[in-house]
Amino acid sequence: MSLVVVGTVAFDAIETPFGKTDKIIGGAATYSGVAASFFTKNIKLVSVVGDDFPASFIKDLNTKGISTDGLQVKEGQKSFFWAGKYHIDMNTRDTLDTQLNVLLDFDPVIPESYQDCEFLMLSNLMPSLQKSVIERLRKRPKLIVMDTMNFWMDTQWDALMDTISLVDVLTVNDAEARQLTNEFSLVKAAQKILAMGPRYLIIKKGEHGALLFNKEQVFFAPALPLEEVFDPTGAGDTFAGGFIGYLAHTRDISFDNMKRGIIYGSAMASFCVEKFGLERMLNLTQAEVEERVQQFVDLVQFDIELV
Amino acid sequence: MSLVVVGTVAFDAIETPFGKTDKIIGGAATYSGVAASFFTKNIKLVSVVGDDFPASFIKDLNTKGISTDGLQVKEGQKSFFWAGKYHIDMNTRDTLDTQLNVLLDFDPVIPESYQDCEFLMLSNLMPSLQKSVIERLRKRPKLIVMDTMNFWMDTQWDALMDTISLVDVLTVNDAEARQLTNEFSLVKAAQKILAMGPRYLIIKKGEHGALLFNKEQVFFAPALPLEEVFDPTGAGDTFAGGFIGYLAHTRDISFDNMKRGIIYGSAMASFCVEKFGLERMLNLTQAEVEERVQQFVDLVQFDIELV
Repeated sequence: MSLVVVGTVAFDAIETPFGKTDKIIGGAATYSGVAASFFTKNIKLVSVVGDDFPASFIKDLNTKGISTDGLQVKEGQKSFFWAGKYHIDMNTRDTLDTQLNVLLDFDPVIPESYQDCEFLMLSNLMPSLQKSVIERLRKRPKLIVMDTMNFWMDTQWDALMDTISLVDVLTVNDAEARQLTNEFSLVKAAQKILAMGPRYLIIKKGEHGALLFNKEQVFFAPALPLEEVFDPTGAGDTFAGGFIGYLAHTRDISFDNMKRGIIYGSAMASFCVEKFGLERMLNLTQAEVEERVQQFVDLVQFDIELV
Repeated sequence: MSLVVVGTVAFDAIETPFGKTDKIIGGAATYSGVAASFFTKNIKLVSVVGDDFPASFIKDLNTKGISTDGLQVKEGQKSFFWAGKYHIDMNTRDTLDTQLNVLLDFDPVIPESYQDCEFLMLSNLMPSLQKSVIERLRKRPKLIVMDTMNFWMDTQWDALMDTISLVDVLTVNDAEARQLTNEFSLVKAAQKILAMGPRYLIIKKGEHGALLFNKEQVFFAPALPLEEVFDPTGAGDTFAGGFIGYLAHTRDISFDNMKRGIIYGSAMASFCVEKFGLERMLNLTQAEVEERVQQFVDLVQFDIELV
């Protein structure tokens, strides 16, 4: 029984008020997979890279318990590349360059060894490709989590709605929740999105935390107040990876366990933003994760005896 | 032993995307006093109004356990009046009209019966007037909470710094915390503000909740996700009133009790925004308050057993 993570494995070039990088390794599935690997060692990656992608990093992923049998390496082609620049508030960014390269004709291949998929993480990707992965798994996973973004709302509305209707948990940010529903109130937006198919909705609010909704309940997890957000790239993917990794580890998809998953996801994301790209995630210990989760407990814990 | 609330008692005219009001009763001290009256019945108001202010409302305050011996009524003068318009996100507003009227030469009078003040709420007001109230109390209160706003940062920096250095708890919003310190990170801003004098700092983030800092600890309380924010006027003052009212009721100024105070303050504020002006606060029951606090518990409560 495994966790399959589908999405981009890519190069990024990042500029923030604190500095800039050359090409470094990024991609939604990379962040999600690495974050999930802190909780489970049975992770299977579906993605595509060019022959410019370092084999050593693929080995690093394997060492973390991430199978790359479903990672296609396209000879003579280049990996997906994104360059962006963050502004001082770190909530807005400009895309400086996007080179789709291998993504242009990506057709996800599901190795036979992936058919035991119990948890499926559909990281941000063309909605039709996300759907194709669901269809290519012979048995429906116990839980399908889907991330998406405003770009697909602007350009592939029908395909997006189609895929959203098939998943259990949708994750979007607050602006995207509003765009999806034309509702300013996140509570109203949540109810509309839950009517589109997903049983659970996570609304990510960056530095302001995250909300988990089902039709009856709502849970809020703060982001950890940080001295510095150095680079937000991959924070949302890291959050999602921590979330589904924790659920896969515990194999419990109750609302109460999803709360814990969100706390673990938030803890992972709080590390991710401390350094450029994956740097902090690749130098993170289990003990640090547990210590940070304790900080979340301290941050929100209070006792009130109601009269 | 009493809670003294200092600040404006005024008229407002409010426009939101949901509608508009004629002149209705408002004012920072009004909101704070009414919110605090849910927790303690020994509240003493220091403010000033003109003879246009309805005596019936002053009686209503008395019925709620709010003494108005320190509320000056200036014959032949008009009450402070503010008119404003909120935009769709409810976080930004334009001031349409400000008529200072009686505020122009307001000189706070502290009746002898107020000298037992144990908790002092300095609602938003000219910093020099806030300071004069501290000076006119013969015995320093057990806890002084001060609210302020960007306007005084722009126009009366030195007087503001002077007053801030005298208080125990400062409440500002996130933009104001950044303006006070030139720090974008709220964690860094908090440490700088705590170095200005206050032992505690509350940063209000509107729909994103509130943070409580001292030099060693931080606590986060969310805002309740609401279907609709109808009118945010007075929400911050209501929050502060609920906070200090709860502390005055329990007479416990520990960090742990301040956490509870913030939850109660957040609960009160979540009611305030449901209707125009004070309307919801004047039609609120103790049972509803307790029920809402339970919603806050449910919203953030999770159990994690750390390994």
